[in-house]
Amino acid sequence: MRLVTFQFIDRQPRVGVVIGDTIIDLAAAAPLVFDDPPPPPWRLLDVLEGMPDGMGLDGAAEIVAAVIDQIGGADDEGMETSRYGPLTIGGVEMLIPLDEAHLLAPLPRPPSLRCFEASERHMAALARLHGGGMPYYWYERPIFAFGNHAAIYGPDAKIPLPRTTAFDYELEVACVIGRAGRDIPLDEANDYIAGYVLLNDWTARDVQHEELIAGFAFSKSKDAATSLGPWLATPDELDEYTLDGGHFNLTLIARVNGIEQSRGNLRDLAYTFAQMAAAASQDCTLYPGDIIACGAIGGSLLEATDGQGPWIEPDDLVELEAAGLGVLRNRIVVRDFLRA
Amino acid sequence: MRLVTFQFIDRQPRVGVVIGDTIIDLAAAAPLVFDDPPPPPWRLLDVLEGMPDGMGLDGAAEIVAAVIDQIGGADDEGMETSRYGPLTIGGVEMLIPLDEAHLLAPLPRPPSLRCFEASERHMAALARLHGGGMPYYWYERPIFAFGNHAAIYGPDAKIPLPRTTAFDYELEVACVIGRAGRDIPLDEANDYIAGYVLLNDWTARDVQHEELIAGFAFSKSKDAATSLGPWLATPDELDEYTLDGGHFNLTLIARVNGIEQSRGNLRDLAYTFAQMAAAASQDCTLYPGDIIACGAIGGSLLEATDGQGPWIEPDDLVELEAAGLGVLRNRIVVRDFLRA
Repeated sequence: MRLVTFQFIDRQPRVGVVIGDTIIDLAAAAPLVFDDPPPPPWRLLDVLEGMPDGMGLDGAAEIVAAVIDQIGGADDEGMETSRYGPLTIGGVEMLIPLDEAHLLAPLPRPPSLRCFEASERHMAALARLHGGGMPYYWYERPIFAFGNHAAIYGPDAKIPLPRTTAFDYELEVACVIGRAGRDIPLDEANDYIAGYVLLNDWTARDVQHEELIAGFAFSKSKDAATSLGPWLATPDELDEYTLDGGHFNLTLIARVNGIEQSRGNLRDLAYTFAQMAAAASQDCTLYPGDIIACGAIGGSLLEATDGQGPWIEPDDLVELEAAGLGVLRNRIVVRDFLRA
Repeated sequence: MRLVTFQFIDRQPRVGVVIGDTIIDLAAAAPLVFDDPPPPPWRLLDVLEGMPDGMGLDGAAEIVAAVIDQIGGADDEGMETSRYGPLTIGGVEMLIPLDEAHLLAPLPRPPSLRCFEASERHMAALARLHGGGMPYYWYERPIFAFGNHAAIYGPDAKIPLPRTTAFDYELEVACVIGRAGRDIPLDEANDYIAGYVLLNDWTARDVQHEELIAGFAFSKSKDAATSLGPWLATPDELDEYTLDGGHFNLTLIARVNGIEQSRGNLRDLAYTFAQMAAAASQDCTLYPGDIIACGAIGGSLLEATDGQGPWIEPDDLVELEAAGLGVLRNRIVVRDFLRA
């Protein structure tokens, strides 16, 4: 399933599943499967937390199957809303044309954000920025910093340029935790992952350089914005890219104003998402909706320009793309205080 | 006001105000002041967010004043519940004896946690642990790392010892943000602070040493637990300790098993809470309930033992204390997986 958070007509965010050019509104369609489900709208976080009534992703899949059954099956291209016309229950539309909806980040306000650094190439680039070598510690277990989960931007959202002269994207994938766990054994960790999503960990390299020197990284270099979207892909969506050992053979591409600047592959992660989730859960509890970003496995301008820039500027359009995960597109805008 | 989150009879957390040996249940007493307030229980976060109906801390103060008026005034020692007997509205008790309530962290699940390092002495101790000198950057603006806001422990809560051989307390005070703001001007920043609370930023020094070397601090060294409490003191509670320039002349003490190990004073902070809040809000939004910890201004075993230990062990009782802020007491317990 490709799970989205969207707005349609009113401004209330809802959770849906994208098939072809159509969004199935999960709450609206829930009566096809469940007796007396809570009224719309639902949030993706509610679904991940198993509400209503322990429903969870399995229940969401049942709802999707019921809708597809009701309309006589989805074709290879998914569903074309126009072929079926409005499909309603009790006057509530179950099918929303994708192009009439406004997509938000799948989790507009996730409970937490952990930014791992699982790429040796990117870690080495950071070490050069720092003026140091690779820390031995990085080879012993995956390392991360907590990020600002209150500054999440969605697909097509405008990113206000923060106070920096060296703004950079980071081409990443994150996994989203699907159920609570503490001291999760490595061989069970995949069961705690609800799905995967493209993530852009926007970074101010000039500020980061100072933070690295201070030995207290990272905060202001990364707290202005993190983009997430366009959808949360459940693990089955990536089946064809899955390698033995928990890695994915999945190419990641970043374009700035239409020109490719970075290309990477998830198979080059030094640590799997299961390893990152297990490590994160040591001595503390992970909760549904927690985000675990892998680090700039796909690269950034730091690598693409060998740390020299040019960097991201106002009006630049940055696109991250991966098969199965879609395109995460954001335009940079001048900050409000500069306009004022 | 001394705002607490507490449990009484049922397990549902409620928000109250402590006066003497009594807790005023804000939601229960709300009908004294407000027409048709939402039913109990309320959360402190609701009150900070101005719900119900833009009520906020001012509304809480009105409720407290109405209760005191109803019982004919509070004496110097506060109220003695036993003197007044049960005071109810519609069968709901408004006054709870403090010793019959179970206090939780004032914010059991705050929206975020920023751990600043505003003490030159502690920063220098960290630099020594790192094997480096003081970073110039520290003198230019307050620096912080995001912490694990999902691992908050309250007063008298047991802290499970994480994977470490060098567990340490950090004697700190945090401010709690009272209203949303972005790019908050320094001279307005105090208006965004709802109050102050004792905070223990438990730290694994052995893990921290490795994280500092990796230049990617801090995460696993600090994510197991942060203690908060026993109450959130609104700024007026600290009036008598307030110095010109936004500092407090407030002594902080830490005891381990009853023996004083650390003593500090908030006036030695290199940056005020207003400066920390303003810096944190640059380029991103702060929200009600966000926690800003000042760093180990009061010290830790790192300073007390010059980095040599002995460190905190199972069954140790750690107490942090400051006038106006109370005593934050926690006992260390052996981790579940070690018992198993």
